[in-house]
Amino acid sequence: MTNSYRIDCLQYCNWSEEIFRQLREGKVDAIHVTIAYHELFQDMVRNIGRWNRLFTRYSDLIFQGRNGDDVRLAHNTNRTAVFFGFQNPSPIEDDIDLVQIVHTLGVRFMQLSYNNQSLLATGCYEAEDPGITRMGKQIIAEMNRVGLVIDMSHSAQRSTLEAMEISERPIAITHANPAFWHPALRNKSDDVLRALGQSGGMLGFSAYPHHLKDKSACTLESFCEMIARTAELMGPENIGIGTDLCQGHPDSEVEWMRVGRWTKEIDYGEGSKSNAGFPDMPSWFRDNRDFGNIENGLRATGLSEAEVSGVMGGNWLRFYDTNFDPISDAGDK
Amino acid sequence: MTNSYRIDCLQYCNWSEEIFRQLREGKVDAIHVTIAYHELFQDMVRNIGRWNRLFTRYSDLIFQGRNGDDVRLAHNTNRTAVFFGFQNPSPIEDDIDLVQIVHTLGVRFMQLSYNNQSLLATGCYEAEDPGITRMGKQIIAEMNRVGLVIDMSHSAQRSTLEAMEISERPIAITHANPAFWHPALRNKSDDVLRALGQSGGMLGFSAYPHHLKDKSACTLESFCEMIARTAELMGPENIGIGTDLCQGHPDSEVEWMRVGRWTKEIDYGEGSKSNAGFPDMPSWFRDNRDFGNIENGLRATGLSEAEVSGVMGGNWLRFYDTNFDPISDAGDK
Repeated sequence: MTNSYRIDCLQYCNWSEEIFRQLREGKVDAIHVTIAYHELFQDMVRNIGRWNRLFTRYSDLIFQGRNGDDVRLAHNTNRTAVFFGFQNPSPIEDDIDLVQIVHTLGVRFMQLSYNNQSLLATGCYEAEDPGITRMGKQIIAEMNRVGLVIDMSHSAQRSTLEAMEISERPIAITHANPAFWHPALRNKSDDVLRALGQSGGMLGFSAYPHHLKDKSACTLESFCEMIARTAELMGPENIGIGTDLCQGHPDSEVEWMRVGRWTKEIDYGEGSKSNAGFPDMPSWFRDNRDFGNIENGLRATGLSEAEVSGVMGGNWLRFYDTNFDPISDAGDK
Repeated sequence: MTNSYRIDCLQYCNWSEEIFRQLREGKVDAIHVTIAYHELFQDMVRNIGRWNRLFTRYSDLIFQGRNGDDVRLAHNTNRTAVFFGFQNPSPIEDDIDLVQIVHTLGVRFMQLSYNNQSLLATGCYEAEDPGITRMGKQIIAEMNRVGLVIDMSHSAQRSTLEAMEISERPIAITHANPAFWHPALRNKSDDVLRALGQSGGMLGFSAYPHHLKDKSACTLESFCEMIARTAELMGPENIGIGTDLCQGHPDSEVEWMRVGRWTKEIDYGEGSKSNAGFPDMPSWFRDNRDFGNIENGLRATGLSEAEVSGVMGGNWLRFYDTNFDPISDAGDK
């Protein structure tokens, strides 16, 4: 086990010492955390400021991760490396120069759109998807240059396929599941997953109940069987975990995630009026202590030990090693 | 002449006492001026701050206009009322609450997109136009409520047609010409113009050379004949002037208008590499002193005196009278 890594490539918790200790109990070497849903640049920077206080206060448990070696450092010092990402390009506002600035601040993933149309791409809840915009093409090239990974978890299909075509570096879908298993709007078609695998991209499997077959009642067996089938579709080296764990938040937080500032009405997103809040997590993944359940479940599907190790963290680590550094002329080391 | 008004519904000049005096020489009662191309909220507010200094310094020549009666006041006191507008929704950022805030600050027109895709609608230079977005529908309703006029001058066709369908109040195309006369991407199709007229909207005719047949060499006769033909298409009460006069700027300003912060490359917009700067104005419209040329040219086309008076300002005044006030529950008088 000592050379096996555990990486969760999407969490958005109400961070606390309790959660950081659960990460250690679950032997999680690295997490990618959301530091912006709808925040513009300055509010996003304030969120980094809050994380810096947490890094100081809980330096025995967590530190900021910037590259793959930080995952190894975390593993070897029994801590968790925390990587920053955005679910929406709102923090770069309308300014291409902010792409390099946010990379310098340690941001490693940026979604090109979150549910709605952005300046760059289309979200999965829009009626129409015209693909990557004029500004989107410019921003993709700049993200490639500085080493900021394109994440299309909440994007619509055509935009996602075009992002893979336009990007010269592999992209990620950090948290979603295949639509063949659970046909939610947020889950991804075979076409998207096949193109993602063929281009060296990564899919992180979500444990968020709205993305699961049978939602909160989803079984571990069904979840792990879905992973094994996706391995056949995409290749076992292009998949990992991205649980979308949203632990400890009040329901007002999910309203912010869905509604932001773009409407005065309530938008229930994946939920509904009668089920507007955060859903209950499945019994086999309450929180970070339960990664062992997923690992054991994967073994039971017949995946090899190397494949299981790859899904649990090795594949994301390889992706981190090769996609977070700038191209040599980017002036941001 | 005392009951005839002159309104120019789009100017973006490098404002100075000289220009304000030319406005008086040209008997221009009101202008709609651009106070934001790509500015976010705070930079737009600073631009209002600069205008407030001009209003104080040149109070004998100009003042801020907020409704149709201010046009009459300007006319009766030999001054020019200055109405604010945005060419892009960037100043409301991603926040629907800012729609009422900018209306309170006196903003009366907002384009839903400027050449590129915005959060609300598509610009005329995008390859695809998916129409009004989810956020766009919410913002249109809010603009209707508070009395902020939708301007689609730089928007793509489907977005423009949908904006007219969705909006419960008439919209404006403050500065563009018919494509039947000069088929620039920025000019408008018969379908758009017919729908605009039928919905009580307004078109302002542009004198910016890239929108003119034969560009800077366009003749006054051709321009006025085009207006007379458009009057047949849209109705003579739905047309006015929106010259897009960009007087006194260095060429760096047109680069800002086109490029903003969305690309590191140069985008030449309506121009080209060999003709990147501001084009020369046509001989018959050098600046604000020349509105008499247009008025006389319109008479020569055979339009009636009442129709000429409407085009020169009466039609915009009627539109200002009915579209700048909030609906009674909007809480912003």
